[in-house]
Amino acid sequence: MSKGRLEAFSDGVIAIIITIMVLELKVPHGADAASLLSVWPVFLSYLLSFLVVAIYWVNHHTLFQAAHHASTGLLWSNNALLFCLSLIPFATGFMGENDFAPFPTALYAATLLLAGLAFIPVRWSVMAQLQDDASFVRVSQMARRKNYISLGLYAISVPLAFCIPPSRSRAPSLSQRSTSCRTRG
Amino acid sequence: MSKGRLEAFSDGVIAIIITIMVLELKVPHGADAASLLSVWPVFLSYLLSFLVVAIYWVNHHTLFQAAHHASTGLLWSNNALLFCLSLIPFATGFMGENDFAPFPTALYAATLLLAGLAFIPVRWSVMAQLQDDASFVRVSQMARRKNYISLGLYAISVPLAFCIPPSRSRAPSLSQRSTSCRTRG
Amino acid sequence: MSKGRLEAFSDGVIAIIITIMVLELKVPHGADAASLLSVWPVFLSYLLSFLVVAIYWVNHHTLFQAAHHASTGLLWSNNALLFCLSLIPFATGFMGENDFAPFPTALYAATLLLAGLAFIPVRWSVMAQLQDDASFVRVSQMARRKNYISLGLYAISVPLAFCIPPSRSRAPSLSQRSTSCRTRG
Amino acid sequence: MSKGRLEAFSDGVIAIIITIMVLELKVPHGADAASLLSVWPVFLSYLLSFLVVAIYWVNHHTLFQAAHHASTGLLWSNNALLFCLSLIPFATGFMGENDFAPFPTALYAATLLLAGLAFIPVRWSVMAQLQDDASFVRVSQMARRKNYISLGLYAISVPLAFCIPPSRSRAPSLSQRSTSCRTRG
Repeated sequence: MSKGRLEAFSDGVIAIIITIMVLELKVPHGADAASLLSVWPVFLSYLLSFLVVAIYWVNHHTLFQAAHHASTGLLWSNNALLFCLSLIPFATGFMGENDFAPFPTALYAATLLLAGLAFIPVRWSVMAQLQDDASFVRVSQMARRKNYISLGLYAISVPLAFCIPPSRSRAPSLSQRSTSCRTRG
Repeated sequence: MSKGRLEAFSDGVIAIIITIMVLELKVPHGADAASLLSVWPVFLSYLLSFLVVAIYWVNHHTLFQAAHHASTGLLWSNNALLFCLSLIPFATGFMGENDFAPFPTALYAATLLLAGLAFIPVRWSVMAQLQDDASFVRVSQMARRKNYISLGLYAISVPLAFCIPPSRSRAPSLSQRSTSCRTRG
Repeated sequence: MSKGRLEAFSDGVIAIIITIMVLELKVPHGADAASLLSVWPVFLSYLLSFLVVAIYWVNHHTLFQAAHHASTGLLWSNNALLFCLSLIPFATGFMGENDFAPFPTALYAATLLLAGLAFIPVRWSVMAQLQDDASFVRVSQMARRKNYISLGLYAISVPLAFCIPPSRSRAPSLSQRSTSCRTRG
Repeated sequence: MSKGRLEAFSDGVIAIIITIMVLELKVPHGADAASLLSVWPVFLSYLLSFLVVAIYWVNHHTLFQAAHHASTGLLWSNNALLFCLSLIPFATGFMGENDFAPFPTALYAATLLLAGLAFIPVRWSVMAQLQDDASFVRVSQMARRKNYISLGLYAISVPLAFCIPPSRSRAPSLSQRSTSCRTRG
């Protein structure tokens, strides 16, 4: 199986994931600056997730450039990765619409952790094709180390989300505004 | 007509089908674990459909790799297949939002059956181009047998959906939760 | 400018147009056959529009295969065509949700007429590149004749939509059902 | 890193951005011409944004054709551009649903200004690869001048949006209609 169509399909899915998150940025009711400000947490979570998915796309691109062909293992580990990435828009919306409340923020961190874990078998599948390529193994080990560090950070941030209290004084008014926004559908 | 653009178009449509299903996974109202749990049946049906569509994509990919060119028959049988696949997000949402109730589950199975049936003329169109290729015919017969078995399973599961009662004790509370979720739009 | 990326962009836009129409097929409230039946007109209009857009894609594909390069005229006439095609999901939803009432049906026919008219400058741009190619000119003239016939049919169907009365006895109950469906967002 | 997949990913994201704006064009409640007229400002803003995004796509295409490879700078400046472009559907919806009221119109102009600014580092990244190519530098300087002029126009139109009063007599009825449209979700 050629890797070209696998790349094209992954590009399509990642392009859609990164773009449909903007659909969560719902047009507020009013036409003034206060109405616009009410979508601020949703915007912030969108910016963050856009960055995360863009990084995944770059890493995916770099890894697949080294791959020789699309093995069955690569095909299905890639599908599993795409599934985990496709959960990011939901987790982003859940966190943004709840003004970074502890539980949704922990779920968001857990989703990123899941996506990070799903990237490991994809890298394994590519590495299995390139065991004799010394330069790839060296570069890959650096990438793997960075990957494990980010996994550690995600894992730590899940419980951390419950420890750092959100600015409670702002929370009620913000969630009120976002509720008035949410009812328009 | 070249098959490259037909593959690219099919990839685009399948990538969109597989990704828009996540839009059905609507952000729940509350910010706690109970709210999150209310989207559980929708999540489960999404996971199932992601797997089904991914399998179709892999089979589509394998079959088209063997094809020589995009004949008119292949073009239109492929469009019919894409149409049937595009009904899966609707059937998935119908089943998930109704907590796997008998009728929506039967409709879901019927939609999978329809997609499986729509795959048959696509295979015929490719096989008509490859009648002299003995190795393809052998591989294809195995794939065809697997296809017919899955068609049989889908066909059986349509009536089965009405026989196996959903866990009625859980059903009311779940549907209540999913209703509160549904009204936000 | 190479025509490859123009084709890829057009494929992407057409793939999205053909697929987002299924988003109009909203999950009905109930879990029984009657609820499912309420989305019947929306389903029928989706099936019709899927067919129309698929035919445009096939014609687009055939025409661009003959083109030598992406001239500025081809680029912008193609963008105008994509814009007109992108109005089909709206017109489809308007017609389907109103059970094929006269005005939405006339608007639907007008949208198809507009898309058909937008195809003419695209063909001109390609023909300007191929004036010396006798075989293309002959094939193109046949395609053009078919195009003008369908334009005539669309033009006739706009006023016809007001003449043929929809089955009024069924209309109230159907629109009632679709209203109950519409409020869920 | 090859530029082919970067182009394909950009095409995918831009195709989705240009197409999801039509989702803002929500089907109105009634089936008559008055209902259709209520979506007029949303339609107008969609037409405008379609044109803007199409121009960006053409400029993007022209610029990338000259690029030799996808450098890290090009990769990330391109991602920043795609992020800014992805805000256009939101700004379009905000302006269209508020009948071109001053604040949303100013925000729309500011979003176009932001996208225009985000295009500058992308051009720099390509130009850094082509410093020795005299013909590209000459063409590029003309494109840059046009870019700066449009940036100036966007920058002027932000405060201008507050000066030119919208036709106040029509505004209430229009926003009333669009509110009745908005509640259906």
